[in-house]
Amino acid sequence: MTGASPGGFEPAFAGYGARVRDSFARQGAMALIGASIVDVAPGYCSIALVPRSEIAQQHGYVHAGILATLADSAGGYAGFTLFPEDASVLTVEYKLNLLAPATGERIVAEGFVVKPGRTLAITRGEVFAEGAGGRTLVAIMQQTLMVMRGKPDQ
Amino acid sequence: MTGASPGGFEPAFAGYGARVRDSFARQGAMALIGASIVDVAPGYCSIALVPRSEIAQQHGYVHAGILATLADSAGGYAGFTLFPEDASVLTVEYKLNLLAPATGERIVAEGFVVKPGRTLAITRGEVFAEGAGGRTLVAIMQQTLMVMRGKPDQ
Amino acid sequence: MTGASPGGFEPAFAGYGARVRDSFARQGAMALIGASIVDVAPGYCSIALVPRSEIAQQHGYVHAGILATLADSAGGYAGFTLFPEDASVLTVEYKLNLLAPATGERIVAEGFVVKPGRTLAITRGEVFAEGAGGRTLVAIMQQTLMVMRGKPDQ
Amino acid sequence: MTGASPGGFEPAFAGYGARVRDSFARQGAMALIGASIVDVAPGYCSIALVPRSEIAQQHGYVHAGILATLADSAGGYAGFTLFPEDASVLTVEYKLNLLAPATGERIVAEGFVVKPGRTLAITRGEVFAEGAGGRTLVAIMQQTLMVMRGKPDQ
Repeated sequence: MTGASPGGFEPAFAGYGARVRDSFARQGAMALIGASIVDVAPGYCSIALVPRSEIAQQHGYVHAGILATLADSAGGYAGFTLFPEDASVLTVEYKLNLLAPATGERIVAEGFVVKPGRTLAITRGEVFAEGAGGRTLVAIMQQTLMVMRGKPDQ
Repeated sequence: MTGASPGGFEPAFAGYGARVRDSFARQGAMALIGASIVDVAPGYCSIALVPRSEIAQQHGYVHAGILATLADSAGGYAGFTLFPEDASVLTVEYKLNLLAPATGERIVAEGFVVKPGRTLAITRGEVFAEGAGGRTLVAIMQQTLMVMRGKPDQ
Repeated sequence: MTGASPGGFEPAFAGYGARVRDSFARQGAMALIGASIVDVAPGYCSIALVPRSEIAQQHGYVHAGILATLADSAGGYAGFTLFPEDASVLTVEYKLNLLAPATGERIVAEGFVVKPGRTLAITRGEVFAEGAGGRTLVAIMQQTLMVMRGKPDQ
Repeated sequence: MTGASPGGFEPAFAGYGARVRDSFARQGAMALIGASIVDVAPGYCSIALVPRSEIAQQHGYVHAGILATLADSAGGYAGFTLFPEDASVLTVEYKLNLLAPATGERIVAEGFVVKPGRTLAITRGEVFAEGAGGRTLVAIMQQTLMVMRGKPDQ
């Protein structure tokens, strides 16, 4: 909920930070997988969770679908920070490349707006695994969002 | 675990069906979201779950990340049915388009092999929401898998 | 420019076929690569070209970028067949998987509408290489289009 | 063909720069669209062309397929700079988002390796339109390449 924007974006709605956190809190899926918001800024959002067996795939790493859930949400909320007050956000599509097994002490997904727009917004996402060995890039995403005008999030 | 293949594929390992179900059973994430396998055939796999608030996004529909988890897994196991005995499956990347809100009595993801290969396999996926109103296509996927030779799943 | 639609789509503008062909004729890039329209129907378009060294990559096969150009255009025009009279079409994004070397007597790209919409349309594409050995699937595509209302194509 | 790498990559084959330029020169499609290499470095390649009506779409902008050809090639050659001497490069798949109309004095595509690997390499690409108004990002790409060992490019 900081004011600085790495991309130099100006939010259209001053309450963008609280709006993202309120929306996040209403997502049952985020509680289920144990995710929480790390940071929100204009055109940016990061979401993290701690790996555990309940979110693992068959080899014990964090499931690709869980990584996708984090990346999709970080990108979606990054876009949402720039939307007008009367709008909600919808993911049109995304593409995710998985680069390395996701394991460690914490998994963090970061979403960045590449291009905001009246109807669509384009974002990129990066997912990192943090642990004793440092920070490893485990997935990258490219995403298209839709600005749902006249349909507030709540 | 039926023997017929819509794509006319010949499995390289006769135990492909049990192998998929064993692998699926070791995925904590599948139990967490309440998913189960519907069917496995050469070059095909379908996975389903019943919508509930724990897997919802902020508007009450099934979360896009959960749909991605289903589609990724259905595609991955579709590919895995055609892999040799000593190989496991890894998702390289996928792209998902979200077409309609996912709600209803059951969500089913179907994965189909488009092109099997020695090193890579390409699949397509479709996710449907089933309910009183019939069957609605809610997401489509295009996916690249890697054949991990010499690395059995367990 | 046939009237039957495999997907059962109803065009919003009766002159959809001529509109696609007029638009295609204004594309310098299509003439440059030697592409021509094979068929147009509601929710469908196919475009073909004959391989030659001017459109090859370093190993003599048709360049992936040329296949992308064909697939993108076939998908875009498939969507355009369903747009209202006052609208033009814009590609938002697409993803292309390359499955086999593109060589032979003719390369044909087919685009199919998966989901039409007021603002966006989603399509799938398939590219085939035709020759003495039959018909080989060489690429598949998944694409998002935007309906540019109030901006006729010409 | 400079030696410095923004990503800190070490090329496996010292002749990587000449190899990229030789491969590029054998691509008929690159000559046809008027593209030339701007720069090659470990994990990086940029390719440019000057817009003209022969590579335009129906509204006079550079065709999305031409942008895809540039981005795909820049990413592919960025990856190729890190491949061993006996290997060639194959595009497995890519996803392209189109952000703005491509027009101006010069179009430049830049490809960057995100993750090199023994079998696969993952890249990102950016396409810019340069003109009197400065430099505009017109497309972004995410790409998967395959390392074709034992199959030199020529």
